[in-house]
Amino acid sequence: MSDHTARTQPRIDIAEVGDALLGRWKQERLESRALAADPRLHTPQGTPMSEHRERVFEQLRILVEENAIQRAYPGDLGGGDNHGGNIAAFQELVLADPSLQIKSGVQWGLFGAAILHLGTRAHHEKWLPDVMDLKLPGAFAMTEIGHGSDVASIGTTATYDPETEEFEIHTPFAGAWKEFLGNAALHGRAAVVFAQLITRGVNHGVHAFFVPIRDADGEMMPGVGSEDDGVKGGLNGIDNGRLHFDRVRIPRENLLNRYGDVAPDGTYSSAIESPGRRFFTMIGTLVQGRVSLDGSSVRAMQAALAIAIRYGSERRQFPGASGRETVLLDYGQHRRRLIPRLAQTYAMAFADERLLTVFDEVFSGARDTEENREDLETLAAALKPLSTWAALDTLQEAREACGGAGFIAKNRLTGLRADLDIYATFEGDNNVLLQLVGKRLLTDYADQFKPGDRAAIAKAAAAQLGDRVSRFGLRQMGQSIADLGQVARSVESLRSTEAQRELLTDRVQTMISEIALALREATKNVPKGDRLAKAIAAEDAFNAQQHKLIEAARAHAELLQWEAFTEAVEKLEGEGSRQVLTWLRDLFGLGLIERNAAWYLTSGRISGQRAEAVTAYIDRLIGRLRPHALDLVDAFGLTPALLRAEIATGIEAERQQEAHDYVEAQRAAGTWPVHEKELRARAKAEAKAASRVEARAGAKVGARS
Amino acid sequence: MSDHTARTQPRIDIAEVGDALLGRWKQERLESRALAADPRLHTPQGTPMSEHRERVFEQLRILVEENAIQRAYPGDLGGGDNHGGNIAAFQELVLADPSLQIKSGVQWGLFGAAILHLGTRAHHEKWLPDVMDLKLPGAFAMTEIGHGSDVASIGTTATYDPETEEFEIHTPFAGAWKEFLGNAALHGRAAVVFAQLITRGVNHGVHAFFVPIRDADGEMMPGVGSEDDGVKGGLNGIDNGRLHFDRVRIPRENLLNRYGDVAPDGTYSSAIESPGRRFFTMIGTLVQGRVSLDGSSVRAMQAALAIAIRYGSERRQFPGASGRETVLLDYGQHRRRLIPRLAQTYAMAFADERLLTVFDEVFSGARDTEENREDLETLAAALKPLSTWAALDTLQEAREACGGAGFIAKNRLTGLRADLDIYATFEGDNNVLLQLVGKRLLTDYADQFKPGDRAAIAKAAAAQLGDRVSRFGLRQMGQSIADLGQVARSVESLRSTEAQRELLTDRVQTMISEIALALREATKNVPKGDRLAKAIAAEDAFNAQQHKLIEAARAHAELLQWEAFTEAVEKLEGEGSRQVLTWLRDLFGLGLIERNAAWYLTSGRISGQRAEAVTAYIDRLIGRLRPHALDLVDAFGLTPALLRAEIATGIEAERQQEAHDYVEAQRAAGTWPVHEKELRARAKAEAKAASRVEARAGAKVGARS
Repeated sequence: MSDHTARTQPRIDIAEVGDALLGRWKQERLESRALAADPRLHTPQGTPMSEHRERVFEQLRILVEENAIQRAYPGDLGGGDNHGGNIAAFQELVLADPSLQIKSGVQWGLFGAAILHLGTRAHHEKWLPDVMDLKLPGAFAMTEIGHGSDVASIGTTATYDPETEEFEIHTPFAGAWKEFLGNAALHGRAAVVFAQLITRGVNHGVHAFFVPIRDADGEMMPGVGSEDDGVKGGLNGIDNGRLHFDRVRIPRENLLNRYGDVAPDGTYSSAIESPGRRFFTMIGTLVQGRVSLDGSSVRAMQAALAIAIRYGSERRQFPGASGRETVLLDYGQHRRRLIPRLAQTYAMAFADERLLTVFDEVFSGARDTEENREDLETLAAALKPLSTWAALDTLQEAREACGGAGFIAKNRLTGLRADLDIYATFEGDNNVLLQLVGKRLLTDYADQFKPGDRAAIAKAAAAQLGDRVSRFGLRQMGQSIADLGQVARSVESLRSTEAQRELLTDRVQTMISEIALALREATKNVPKGDRLAKAIAAEDAFNAQQHKLIEAARAHAELLQWEAFTEAVEKLEGEGSRQVLTWLRDLFGLGLIERNAAWYLTSGRISGQRAEAVTAYIDRLIGRLRPHALDLVDAFGLTPALLRAEIATGIEAERQQEAHDYVEAQRAAGTWPVHEKELRARAKAEAKAASRVEARAGAKVGARS
Repeated sequence: MSDHTARTQPRIDIAEVGDALLGRWKQERLESRALAADPRLHTPQGTPMSEHRERVFEQLRILVEENAIQRAYPGDLGGGDNHGGNIAAFQELVLADPSLQIKSGVQWGLFGAAILHLGTRAHHEKWLPDVMDLKLPGAFAMTEIGHGSDVASIGTTATYDPETEEFEIHTPFAGAWKEFLGNAALHGRAAVVFAQLITRGVNHGVHAFFVPIRDADGEMMPGVGSEDDGVKGGLNGIDNGRLHFDRVRIPRENLLNRYGDVAPDGTYSSAIESPGRRFFTMIGTLVQGRVSLDGSSVRAMQAALAIAIRYGSERRQFPGASGRETVLLDYGQHRRRLIPRLAQTYAMAFADERLLTVFDEVFSGARDTEENREDLETLAAALKPLSTWAALDTLQEAREACGGAGFIAKNRLTGLRADLDIYATFEGDNNVLLQLVGKRLLTDYADQFKPGDRAAIAKAAAAQLGDRVSRFGLRQMGQSIADLGQVARSVESLRSTEAQRELLTDRVQTMISEIALALREATKNVPKGDRLAKAIAAEDAFNAQQHKLIEAARAHAELLQWEAFTEAVEKLEGEGSRQVLTWLRDLFGLGLIERNAAWYLTSGRISGQRAEAVTAYIDRLIGRLRPHALDLVDAFGLTPALLRAEIATGIEAERQQEAHDYVEAQRAAGTWPVHEKELRARAKAEAKAASRVEARAGAKVGARS
């Protein structure tokens, strides 16, 4: 294999790139990694569920003792008022055990955070100290069996009774039972229960209530029932379960009343007039779950690639032309599997850092505007789906790239994959989140025009369509003729930062404007005034565009990742770091263009030759990055105590060396048996030589005769 | 949602389609399904590993008692001489528990089958009866820590000693230890060990040896060591482990000598002269593992889709325009996730039936020629990667489509996925298998030309390239102009069977010829005679093409699946069945074209408009198939006892109905609280009406004054 020349190229400064990856909350991340490396926070693979659950519960106490979970809480209650640092530290805990991470997330990021963000000062003083030191373990009872993504339609009710100044919490049918709640099956003493607030015969929509569920002895409170969800596909250190409530009474004061309150006489009041906006404001305070999962997924991807790339750099299989067996990472296919995913992981890491920054700006109050909150929600909804899916994909590819060894639990890939599976649908189903992003993009698109100015939108879209026809026709033809056979030149224009940005941006904008046009077209012939017909037509039209809208949202998220990557590369000072990371960014950007080549071709953005040039250049970039692969995973800074995967410890290289030395020693001693193949080859060569001699002799004889 | 019109369309005959899916070995499949539904063969989720292992071992005895595993063995030894039926029955066992299935596969499909196919009559008589009735549990010791895919290079040696007429089995370094072997950690009494056969100082390559590893009390035999692989990502009912051998002596007769033998004096003999061909012949007898996994993956996919489509047909989420909440499967995105995968599952089921038929023809001896064996190996190597990957993808998509419920173990999706993970790399790493297929395609391509006729190949490839340029230019331009805005007409030409076949075939042929040309070009400038330089250049060139070659092999496998699907549809007699399955086949075929649209566009096979028409037609097909989705999964014939997933039992529909009834009853009783949103809307409408009245009154006043 011929990559040795590449070794003379610039190398990255591992410390510099490592710092860029650790980002603004480096200190918190390193503190949390020190904890994640602590064996007290690990659970042996194969630990039975009940034991794993108890162990994780005990581990939460260690987090309390180590001051690991207080960061986001108010300073005067023992917290650190550090929102970004809190999430950064939380993300690292995935390396200890995702069960531990998510159980702590349930306790302090959902249950506690709901009290913090939806409650008011009296609630904070009353409950947060006990929440923080785990005297009061709690569940976050939002999801119901019947309603997951559609929280606004949940069936649980909280009906106010002015006689007793109490709310009555009730799950009126099985579909309203609270489901999949961590801490519900065993450890929770209370729950923040989301329910329709009903007072004076009016339903004011979903609000959160503090509801005790178990007494000090762990017995269920009267009217509260719990069922255990049992074994899950992963995260079996968490006691997920169901809760149901049979007219359970709680004091009026247990309504977490930051955004809506009920007076003793039953009068409802809220600073936010619109019930819709009120609901989204309440839900919006819980965005940190999505931010957390985004960065946790990045960390799991980094671990997967660190394992697979180290193993792939040591493992050899099949003899090569030059004698020894070939290193896996020198195979074209093996590189294609791992190196583009390495580029993606970098992009997602930098995008998460940006998300975390926006999160901190909003939650610290530094830039807490409604617009920033909306942007934060959209950003989180865009990034979390892509990173959680990418984590599953990367863990699986790494698992397969390590063959059978990847399947053994002690090499960690399968366990992480099983645990992270649910990240794709919790804290928001990925497809639902992307749809939310798509809707926001449609709104932003429409906002460019005067309200209701259909003609302007149609005109803009038509102009785009015309542009496209002309691109598809003449412009592309021109490109083809110019490009033909000139692969190098045709890729030149694609590898500049601006060209990549333009192509990626163009795709999002064009897709969104096409969807907007299709949605408008679909309803324009419905008779005015027939509201139901119009609503149904709009719904059908939206449904027909749903897949495309989700694709557009994905394209938008990828553009954000690419931008974050580009920004991070531009900040690097070391020449080697910047050069290598630029290649990696190019690989990410061109990889997106290659993956969506059909769109770029169909819409006339690139010619067929240019598309092929992209693929050819990607192959070159992968070859160029191959010698840097180990450096690039070293920059993740994942120590052996964090990885804890036997195949990433150098054991494979040792075995390869031992085998090689054995064979060499045998050869030197003359005891290495000759292979039958070799004997046959020798015999064949001898026979050939003999027949040549014979033929020559015969020729001589012939000449003589 | 507006799919109700579709209900007037033809429907499939579920029994007829079901029979087509069950295929030629319907009887054996149904017998095996009856067993797979038997609770004795199930293990509760979350059973600890050691208990699961013992339970599975006991379950193997049940398989013996129920005559479930004897089918492939010789009739006079108690078997059924039924090779196809044996694999068909084996495939169904995945529905009981993949651990049970694979453990039985180790015992009877690998250990036993190796004795059957690599041993001779004396071996059969001596060991097979005990293998069959499980008196002799055994391991199949091929893979080593250091060598997985590259079996020819294993390090274990079997050195013949004519003094004692024994072989000495030895693992000279850690990399040679046999690894990941089922039955090795606990239950195996013997192993078929693959080792380099060395006699008289010559290594005759890899042969198989029968080696006792534990005595009757379960103690390790002298010189044999075993280690437990511990917890795995799945299949934890199997006791995988390592075996190592320290100069363990076995009688000469323990060489499984069908393809190579050693006389008492140490003389080696074989009916197959070429050591390479001999090795591949031996390995080829073990193709049944791949055939087994192919159909098992199909069965798991069918289960996944039966669960997700049933749940998706009942589950509702988010209120629709027409009042009630919308059924998940009526969402555009949800259909896009599941219905194309349903089409793929059908294609793979029919392709597996074809594979099984070829397998039976060879192994029954009916058509056992060298060419047929080669075709069988290529077919298995093509289909097994795609189906094992598709199973993981489908199980995951189904899991996510069921949300949190999909993650609960009792709904089975996560367990099946965890167990089937390893199918992608065992019995041949998927990428290595596809490369094997690609190499065969290259050989077939070269065989069209006279040996070594480089000029002819270059000419053929150049002609193709010329064709391509002209297509890319004029032909595509012509298409664009003709197609513009005429989506319906442009798709017409793509939905005929012939058009699909041509497009799919063309892609395989073109890719292969392009790779062949690139490989030839790469070595033509190396000076003649410099063998090493030539070998290195050839290796580098191959490596540069490896990814593309694997893609070409995948395209070939997809074409085979499409052909099998088409053939199966043509055999259907019911008009409704044929119509619906033709749509499903079209969805599969056009789905392949859509997925590879970039290639078709780049190579000038289709125009941009035509590519968009494909997508639009796919959307229509999905809508058309939506009302048949339940019928199409019902045809799988997977009873509740086989599925055993709570969410596929109708429980969700019950919950939906209960909630709906509750709300309706409250409304009827006038106790359903009005929503604040509604009050505000009413107030707004009243204010508007009032202001209109006021304005009118004002106008009147104005008119009067």
